[in-house]
Amino acid sequence: MTIKSFHPPQRTLMGPGPSDVSPRVLSAMARPTIGHLDPVFVTMMDEMKTLLKYAFKTDNELTMPVSAPGSAGMETCFVNLVEPGDKVIVCQNGVFGGRMKENVERCGGIAVMVQDDWGRAVDAQKLEDALKANKDAKIVAFVHAETSTGALSDAKTLVEIAHKYNCLTIVDAVTSLAGSKLLVDEWKIDAIYSGTQKCLSCTPGLSPVSFSANALEKIKNRKTKVQSWFMDLNLVMGYWGGATKRAYHHTAPINALYGLHESLVILQEEGIENSWARHQKNHLALRAGLEAMGLTFIVPENERLPQLNAISIPEGVDEAAVRNILLNDYQLEIGAGLGAMAGKVWRIGLMGHASNQRNILLCLNALDDALGRVKAPIKHGVAVAAANKAFAG
Amino acid sequence: MTIKSFHPPQRTLMGPGPSDVSPRVLSAMARPTIGHLDPVFVTMMDEMKTLLKYAFKTDNELTMPVSAPGSAGMETCFVNLVEPGDKVIVCQNGVFGGRMKENVERCGGIAVMVQDDWGRAVDAQKLEDALKANKDAKIVAFVHAETSTGALSDAKTLVEIAHKYNCLTIVDAVTSLAGSKLLVDEWKIDAIYSGTQKCLSCTPGLSPVSFSANALEKIKNRKTKVQSWFMDLNLVMGYWGGATKRAYHHTAPINALYGLHESLVILQEEGIENSWARHQKNHLALRAGLEAMGLTFIVPENERLPQLNAISIPEGVDEAAVRNILLNDYQLEIGAGLGAMAGKVWRIGLMGHASNQRNILLCLNALDDALGRVKAPIKHGVAVAAANKAFAG
Repeated sequence: MTIKSFHPPQRTLMGPGPSDVSPRVLSAMARPTIGHLDPVFVTMMDEMKTLLKYAFKTDNELTMPVSAPGSAGMETCFVNLVEPGDKVIVCQNGVFGGRMKENVERCGGIAVMVQDDWGRAVDAQKLEDALKANKDAKIVAFVHAETSTGALSDAKTLVEIAHKYNCLTIVDAVTSLAGSKLLVDEWKIDAIYSGTQKCLSCTPGLSPVSFSANALEKIKNRKTKVQSWFMDLNLVMGYWGGATKRAYHHTAPINALYGLHESLVILQEEGIENSWARHQKNHLALRAGLEAMGLTFIVPENERLPQLNAISIPEGVDEAAVRNILLNDYQLEIGAGLGAMAGKVWRIGLMGHASNQRNILLCLNALDDALGRVKAPIKHGVAVAAANKAFAG
Repeated sequence: MTIKSFHPPQRTLMGPGPSDVSPRVLSAMARPTIGHLDPVFVTMMDEMKTLLKYAFKTDNELTMPVSAPGSAGMETCFVNLVEPGDKVIVCQNGVFGGRMKENVERCGGIAVMVQDDWGRAVDAQKLEDALKANKDAKIVAFVHAETSTGALSDAKTLVEIAHKYNCLTIVDAVTSLAGSKLLVDEWKIDAIYSGTQKCLSCTPGLSPVSFSANALEKIKNRKTKVQSWFMDLNLVMGYWGGATKRAYHHTAPINALYGLHESLVILQEEGIENSWARHQKNHLALRAGLEAMGLTFIVPENERLPQLNAISIPEGVDEAAVRNILLNDYQLEIGAGLGAMAGKVWRIGLMGHASNQRNILLCLNALDDALGRVKAPIKHGVAVAAANKAFAG
């Protein structure tokens, strides 16, 4: 056995995440490792919290990155907020609502599912009906931006309804953070988690989370211990909390945090509102190109995520063959369908650093070529002009 | 608010971890991010498994890095192997045995604690007595290398005893992997976890684990679901398992895995037996220097970890002042005491890439200076010569 150093190819990442990472972020990750209790590192942690508060639009004191990927951020929210016997309304309109159900049940909670069509936003009326029928519900959980379908839900309204029935809210913002308008404080979200590998354009592996004072209150007054030691916020707060001396809980992923810090600095430089606007503008250009080719979106325009474009696979097309052409000949990754959407859609991400004109034109040209090679019934040679027109307009 | 890019200082890390990271590993982490289902990435994952099997000296098929730090690797072992009501014998001789107890209890298990002196190896006879008194015990858990004290336990013997009483074994090898002899298959360890930031000299954030066929058997036949979705090996195996097509579970921390891959390639180049020998040789040189100064170890030599040297703080010395001098004037980090050892010991790590002659001489000279400045009663100007003599011998 002799295994050599691994040298990955240079891809363009336009799938559902990870998205292309800025060279600035990659370079930050290669800076010298220092100790997780080093005073200089602690200063960096404080900056990180400030930057994350900016990204989430919140003043929540408990705003920090969980030292593991987005699914651990999700679990951090559920294990801390759900106690055995708690009834949780879970709105499901894609794969990740299903994962929420799993989380509720593994915490000993009772999940009441509100099913919506995949590819549509969560229906506020259905949520209200469920809350009327389940007056003892304690928590409402939903996905702001469904990565499996590209649907954006109206988080503000859903939280308002939940609060009307005295429920706390857990919101999945893995794909929305920095790509779609998200106002944690103004919308009064109680617990939220995201990922680093989507619109923050950092490498995967960390999960920014934020908890309101009400959420914290519930966590502090739990009757039972949080079932996860690693994710127990009562303990994690001793390290990430600001008031007193930082105490060792687990060893923080130092260099990954350097990367996240840098990606948040980049976001701050651009301005978060500008980032939202850029994602929308680029979506419109991609849309113009795709629609000119004759491809169709599965999500109605007003419920659509600009950063994740799910399009139907044309009749009779071998979807994997197309993705293979893109990957092998263009070094371009787009996403396959997930769960019930497998084989039915492609997911084209325009996330963070990857949401730019160059990538849109690359993707349209590559799709035009690949779809031609598999003899898909599309219009050729029109997509780029349509996209450019949208950019100009 | 304007926060700038973070540029950490260049420290020398001789604490309990993270240890100094090789520039090769840092450089690997900055390579282009690719997708977690990219065929090229999947090839890298296979290599990773082969390299980890080499490091653990095992053929266990389920050998992989958990996508989170060592404490999540610990929790992965406990949540998968402990079912509610299971009795677990936990041998505690430092901080991390206490964390194991927390894990058992949060899984609904019953922890039977076998207490040993901090700074000593786990006592095999005490374990056997506990097993005799608890015939219904299902699992024995202990720490191979106690990071809080620097004590090395006889894992082979402890596992033998556990198996005599039909218990599975969970072994903490966070600090031992690649630094001390560790033979997972030969010693018949059932479940083991480690960290990347100790003797592998990678950045923190991942936890290599390995599970025997017997452990897997128990996991597959659980009566209850694993309480953690993120750590459920039945699900994680779908991504890291080799037999069938890789399925999405969570998004792997791509660039962190590049770093671990590179650190394991470096280990393979050196040869693991050579790595163990280097740690021992360098420990002897450091020991010679420290003892020449009049400093004393808290662990008896035959129970001592070469990679983590816990020494008593001389009477009347302000231990934090000494560490501050080392950090500020020498850019050198050594560790404070943890838990019951706080204020009583320093912990000097000689782990992985950081275990070298240059660091030993740097540390001895720096300690000589710093201890002089705080007027500690030690012998000056003798440590380096003693260490060099040990190197030469």
